[in-house]
Amino acid sequence: MDTPTLHRYEQLAELILGMIENGALAPGMRLPSVRTVSEQHGISVSTVLQAFRMLEDRGVLVARPQSGFYVAAARSGALALPSTSRASTKASTVSISGAVAALIEHASNPALVPLGCAVPDADLLQSTRLDSALARAARQHGSRYNVYCPPRGEPRLRREIAKRAMRFGHALSPDDVLVTGGCTEALTLALGAVAGPGDTVAIESPTYMGLLHTLEVLGLKAFELPTDPQHGIDVDALARLLEREPVAACVLSSSFNNPLGSTMAEAGKRSLLALLARHAVPLIEDDVYGDIYFSRERPKPFIALDGGANTIYCSSFSKSLAPGYRVGWIAAGAYAKPVLERKLAFSLCCAVLPQVAIADFLETGAYEAHLRGIRRMFAENVARMTRAIEASFPAETKVSRPAGGFFLWLELPKHFDSRALFDKALEQGICFVPGDVFSASRRFRNCLRLSAAHVWDDRIEDGVRRLGRLAQALLAC
Amino acid sequence: MDTPTLHRYEQLAELILGMIENGALAPGMRLPSVRTVSEQHGISVSTVLQAFRMLEDRGVLVARPQSGFYVAAARSGALALPSTSRASTKASTVSISGAVAALIEHASNPALVPLGCAVPDADLLQSTRLDSALARAARQHGSRYNVYCPPRGEPRLRREIAKRAMRFGHALSPDDVLVTGGCTEALTLALGAVAGPGDTVAIESPTYMGLLHTLEVLGLKAFELPTDPQHGIDVDALARLLEREPVAACVLSSSFNNPLGSTMAEAGKRSLLALLARHAVPLIEDDVYGDIYFSRERPKPFIALDGGANTIYCSSFSKSLAPGYRVGWIAAGAYAKPVLERKLAFSLCCAVLPQVAIADFLETGAYEAHLRGIRRMFAENVARMTRAIEASFPAETKVSRPAGGFFLWLELPKHFDSRALFDKALEQGICFVPGDVFSASRRFRNCLRLSAAHVWDDRIEDGVRRLGRLAQALLAC
Repeated sequence: MDTPTLHRYEQLAELILGMIENGALAPGMRLPSVRTVSEQHGISVSTVLQAFRMLEDRGVLVARPQSGFYVAAARSGALALPSTSRASTKASTVSISGAVAALIEHASNPALVPLGCAVPDADLLQSTRLDSALARAARQHGSRYNVYCPPRGEPRLRREIAKRAMRFGHALSPDDVLVTGGCTEALTLALGAVAGPGDTVAIESPTYMGLLHTLEVLGLKAFELPTDPQHGIDVDALARLLEREPVAACVLSSSFNNPLGSTMAEAGKRSLLALLARHAVPLIEDDVYGDIYFSRERPKPFIALDGGANTIYCSSFSKSLAPGYRVGWIAAGAYAKPVLERKLAFSLCCAVLPQVAIADFLETGAYEAHLRGIRRMFAENVARMTRAIEASFPAETKVSRPAGGFFLWLELPKHFDSRALFDKALEQGICFVPGDVFSASRRFRNCLRLSAAHVWDDRIEDGVRRLGRLAQALLAC
Repeated sequence: MDTPTLHRYEQLAELILGMIENGALAPGMRLPSVRTVSEQHGISVSTVLQAFRMLEDRGVLVARPQSGFYVAAARSGALALPSTSRASTKASTVSISGAVAALIEHASNPALVPLGCAVPDADLLQSTRLDSALARAARQHGSRYNVYCPPRGEPRLRREIAKRAMRFGHALSPDDVLVTGGCTEALTLALGAVAGPGDTVAIESPTYMGLLHTLEVLGLKAFELPTDPQHGIDVDALARLLEREPVAACVLSSSFNNPLGSTMAEAGKRSLLALLARHAVPLIEDDVYGDIYFSRERPKPFIALDGGANTIYCSSFSKSLAPGYRVGWIAAGAYAKPVLERKLAFSLCCAVLPQVAIADFLETGAYEAHLRGIRRMFAENVARMTRAIEASFPAETKVSRPAGGFFLWLELPKHFDSRALFDKALEQGICFVPGDVFSASRRFRNCLRLSAAHVWDDRIEDGVRRLGRLAQALLAC
């Protein structure tokens, strides 16, 4: 639904991507010349060139000197996709906290090449307008806002959040929204409202280590569902689990899960919702990456497909605008009352001025242009990192192909030890995240996650390549 | 320890207060003339007059025209103190959430005379310098701080908090401090670290309804200890409880408990700490009112008396500087690790820029002058409100005499129904808090809490007097 506000070169790029997707442009085919496209579409040569260059940066097109632009080969020579994870045999208690604390330490160490952190580079988000909005709010209205805000959060911000939900086709009223301290608090409130200590929660596998940590501290058990690196969880496996034992909730990414980047197709999402409804199991969805899509349209979150009947929607501005502001939200639908009670009891309300600043920023309409910019940057970063991986990691490496977000998931042969690689990488000043922290049962020891959330530069490029050579050496011994 | 930075008129007022306390100046005695005091102390006549007027505002001195200043009568004709509450017979499960939500709604309604809210008036705190610090931080360093801060919080703020702890005689290092979303989050993290669902926690009675709400949502039971309106809890009653049954923790105000304003003497605090140590029961203390003392010295929190061996210290800037910033902290000592893990799992970290702004503000040293100002205002407000209560409430009313904070606790005869008064007061546009929400077992139906946290004006004065007349009418029927 953002199409009307796309630049012309972006519209053209989308058109080309669509033609590649539907097969009208096949791998290896030469595109019409820049001049021809310019005449056909009535747009300037420089605009056409801008679109072609952008697609080249993403690895979609290849430029051949004196010849023109070609659709990139169908990843011949490229690395295969990681395999679908296998199902848990039973729910696991989680014990991840030590690993999480250690990794946070490393991920925030500026001396290391930052392939580990889950937060976009501040330079990349650089939201001068947002910071100005905060400065203005503090100077002009500091006293007015130096109170506890309403428990649900600043009304103007909730209105803007509700308006944004309309963009993905879900009608929310501002009163359906509760502002939280980031998505982490939203997930904590949601889990606390639907599950108690000892209960089982079904999750993606691999999944985000922060979620595992929250499950651990809440005393919840995790059942890891088989998850395909492109299409997300296996609904049949969930169906078998639900037949077999009680499940308090299912927690899934809405799109571009961390670390796989997988997204269920709408049909899959609908059948999952129907399954959960039959068993009266609530779905908690985490949509923090939903706005960072590389293709034409924002994937719909679950809540937009079932009208939110049985879904608790959680999100934040931390991945796309302002990690430092700690502003997230939850639309808990049928669970709104227990969620609000928990918010009141646990932290009362959130800081007011950061909410006012984000509301101001959203009201100006600047967020859409901001999102277009970071989507392009993340898409380019992911493409560049994929090429650097293909050029340096062992040929047996499998790598994910995310259609959004900023993570790549690498799977190496079974006996590969990503913890040994981690130790060697730290010695060489490189940080990444070893695979075992993405699993309650500590699988994925042969996997790793790389983050492409930093401004691309030689240090990153070189870091990936050195890491690839380290992996080669480790695999050889 | 703030004495060196007191103004001269404040030093003189402290001297007079001391002489009244130790009996050198008895009720009804005439003070030496302003001129005499000026000559004796080598300070200006206007400074002496400023001290006398301040003590007059607090109800300590009385000015008689053509005659001079007298020590106010020993509250002859004044109202008695509320009685000490009685002990629980058993721990109660808590069910307060509905009442809390309803009261928050009323307390934030600007159409009502604000005798109900627990947050100081933004006009009274008016921290222009703090807001400027936030504006500056956002403008100059917005991008630098647009990241997740270290899990324990912004290091500069933790350094300032640790320095302030030195003022009350407890040595903390910045790494002992974890920044939280207000004191509510600090208490939630502390309770979660030491107690699990079904456990019993010993608390003051009456106590702060927010604490009761947190206990409810965590599934903890409350044992209400007998609490004296001046001297705090009955340590012997706690000793009997500890002999009888397991208690997971004791949660107390460090000073000026909400709603009584009671503070244990240091000897009492020491014997309580010794008792808890013998039974290996941790103490969680809430020191949000500790900086708002009306007498000469800040009461020491528990942590300063036992070196923090078994104490988890919680506080915030919400009552004294910046409710809207939601910045609190916890020094969890032996429980630092589980508390940090819970913080990470539940909300990751707090917003960075508000922390940076408060750190900037504290570094300038402006906080001490700010605190002196609000201490004086709250002391005057409490004295004025006491006089308005004495002038308008039924003669049987008992009222607390807090030595800090900004609440007054009123006890009416047993059959008085403060809920009926509440309904009538709302009809007349007046808000206060009925007594039953300060108890897990819903005692104190004949009591009420008034807040003197607003800039004093005719609307407040008139509101208290009208409320008093309503109480008279209700008691008469």
